[in-house]
Amino acid sequence: MLDINRLRADTPGCDPLIHLNNAGASLSASVVGAAMARHQQREIRLGGYEAADAAQAETAAVYGSVARLLNACTEEIALVDNATRAWDMLFYALPLKAGDVVLTSASEYAGNYIPYLQLKRRLGIQIEVLANDEHGQVCLAALRARLQGPRVALVSLPMIASNGGVLQPVQAIGALCRAAGVLFLLDACQAAGQVPLDVRAIGCHMLTATSRKYLRGPRGVGFLYIEQALCQRLEPTFLDLHAATLVSADAFEMRGDARRFESWECNLAVRLGFGAAVDYALDLGIEALWARIQYLAGYLRAALHTLPGYQCQDVGQPLTGLVTFTGERHAPAAIQHSLAQLPRRINVSVSGASSTWLDMRQRGLESVVRASVHAYNTEAELDSLVEALRRL
Amino acid sequence: MLDINRLRADTPGCDPLIHLNNAGASLSASVVGAAMARHQQREIRLGGYEAADAAQAETAAVYGSVARLLNACTEEIALVDNATRAWDMLFYALPLKAGDVVLTSASEYAGNYIPYLQLKRRLGIQIEVLANDEHGQVCLAALRARLQGPRVALVSLPMIASNGGVLQPVQAIGALCRAAGVLFLLDACQAAGQVPLDVRAIGCHMLTATSRKYLRGPRGVGFLYIEQALCQRLEPTFLDLHAATLVSADAFEMRGDARRFESWECNLAVRLGFGAAVDYALDLGIEALWARIQYLAGYLRAALHTLPGYQCQDVGQPLTGLVTFTGERHAPAAIQHSLAQLPRRINVSVSGASSTWLDMRQRGLESVVRASVHAYNTEAELDSLVEALRRL
Repeated sequence: MLDINRLRADTPGCDPLIHLNNAGASLSASVVGAAMARHQQREIRLGGYEAADAAQAETAAVYGSVARLLNACTEEIALVDNATRAWDMLFYALPLKAGDVVLTSASEYAGNYIPYLQLKRRLGIQIEVLANDEHGQVCLAALRARLQGPRVALVSLPMIASNGGVLQPVQAIGALCRAAGVLFLLDACQAAGQVPLDVRAIGCHMLTATSRKYLRGPRGVGFLYIEQALCQRLEPTFLDLHAATLVSADAFEMRGDARRFESWECNLAVRLGFGAAVDYALDLGIEALWARIQYLAGYLRAALHTLPGYQCQDVGQPLTGLVTFTGERHAPAAIQHSLAQLPRRINVSVSGASSTWLDMRQRGLESVVRASVHAYNTEAELDSLVEALRRL
Repeated sequence: MLDINRLRADTPGCDPLIHLNNAGASLSASVVGAAMARHQQREIRLGGYEAADAAQAETAAVYGSVARLLNACTEEIALVDNATRAWDMLFYALPLKAGDVVLTSASEYAGNYIPYLQLKRRLGIQIEVLANDEHGQVCLAALRARLQGPRVALVSLPMIASNGGVLQPVQAIGALCRAAGVLFLLDACQAAGQVPLDVRAIGCHMLTATSRKYLRGPRGVGFLYIEQALCQRLEPTFLDLHAATLVSADAFEMRGDARRFESWECNLAVRLGFGAAVDYALDLGIEALWARIQYLAGYLRAALHTLPGYQCQDVGQPLTGLVTFTGERHAPAAIQHSLAQLPRRINVSVSGASSTWLDMRQRGLESVVRASVHAYNTEAELDSLVEALRRL
């Protein structure tokens, strides 16, 4: 069981505000800031490179922590400056060619959809959007049928959509991809730290995610997992002196592990803060966090259902910590703005059609309010939100 | 005139050590840490995204500061997580094709040379290394002659080499490139903050550099300049929802300014710390910093020349703040290690052949000690280094 008082005492941001934008960037526990401050002090005391040398064991441990989070090997993990670039480094490295089909879901993030369109134009790949089932999740029967058809090179989709929060049946999708011999790239940005992740059980070949959302780490770090056998076959789009070594005036060799997708230079304090965040989440237990997040999100949805003039817009089964709704009297942006002006500020975000174009169009939505809960939130905070919405 | 006492009082790292690894990562002024801490506090008080909203004006100002540093327009500046990726985003976006020739210098950094080799293999481009003149700098007559020959698509080289520190005659190189209608990509990693930079005077089409070296900013930020007209013609290798917008289910539009080469997510505290570092350098005046750095480097070289058993290995005219040498009795790594063990630690670095392969081979060097001075260093610190070397 989670000790919520301890969780809140660990989180300096809890006091001044009611933070329900955890799917944007969550509040960090104080161990995260402490790990960053410790390294920043080391940089002052020793110099930047010299501090990095002194922190080698701590840095290596971050890879171990991420590997534990995913049930992967450390050699399969790379740290990248953000999840977008982690995803880019994998997607653009795939040997896609004209006519190859990328299967995605209607819940795909526009930030990934633009790269599909870019390679459609650049290489002539084809994009196909999988049909949804009655829960708004990818229809497994449709996926199975399509995987038996021609030219599918990749299944690529988000585990949890950034609007509405639909949670895809990734384990079933992974099994179908494995059976068909098709690569599966999973964007777990909203899932890491919220839902237990096991890359072996899921069967994905590649996974990317970020520090700042449900893992509660600092901004400016993302990570990727790539299965070792696949890693050896892919050449990163960009190479540097960390990813490869010059062995003659005319030849280089790439490193064998996932760090061939990294670049060398980074802000190490941020990376160590991220490691502290992952360790903190692992200590609490992702299963326990997931249970608490589902409980709180359910509590909020139940309250919204009884609130006149508001519609909950979530789809999927089970539902996640991302609670979305619209109001009849106010636009989502106006609701967000009003909540931020309260004496005790309430942070929610607005998810617009431009971020999840296909899904929002299918559902006839322009934008929704997104209140995303984390384990450190409380029923009282959610009551405050509902009360504030009632008064708007 | 610089007030050295003030410079040192501004720099918390000055007290505990003698830092002569400014070409690796320099010590920051306290304004840098203060700007970072201010934003980190804002993130605790407001939340990550909400803090970013509150810091919009400050964030925009960073682009203005970098533009002033380079005599560019803010629309020509992009901030990237490191200089390597800034350079990658430009280099790999160029429309190079089989047979196109990239001209570089023997002083090229291996981290850039590997990408040349990668595109040689991937696209069939050709790499040609320009001859040096008697100062070890690019021979301008050879460059002029080669630019009149066939298929030169790009001149790409470092302004200051990371070993030995040769400073290229970039203004003359830029003029020759402009006259020939050939693109010029300048890696100014070791130059930014050390030498006055003016992209209009240099005539380069693209320039990249980093925060952590002579600009004394935090690790984990780099930047690029791209001439506006060229920017409009280049499509970044990777695109995200910040660089482009989805305008239909089948089309996207790229933004018009240099930020099409950025990705959205970053650690904003680090970026704001970088802005503070640039402002600090601009306040002091880059001309004054350059004069002081040349003076101190000259002071150190003069002392090394009188020190038995050591050879200064610098080439070029004028020389820069990167002072390199070898010792007859000890390998560079052993010298570095010994200096780091002193009661008052002295930081120098070792520049190995793997980082600047061509130049080191040409000069028959395996590795050199690099003592890189910045304006806050003192004659007394350099005397301490020389005395320590004498006793080794």
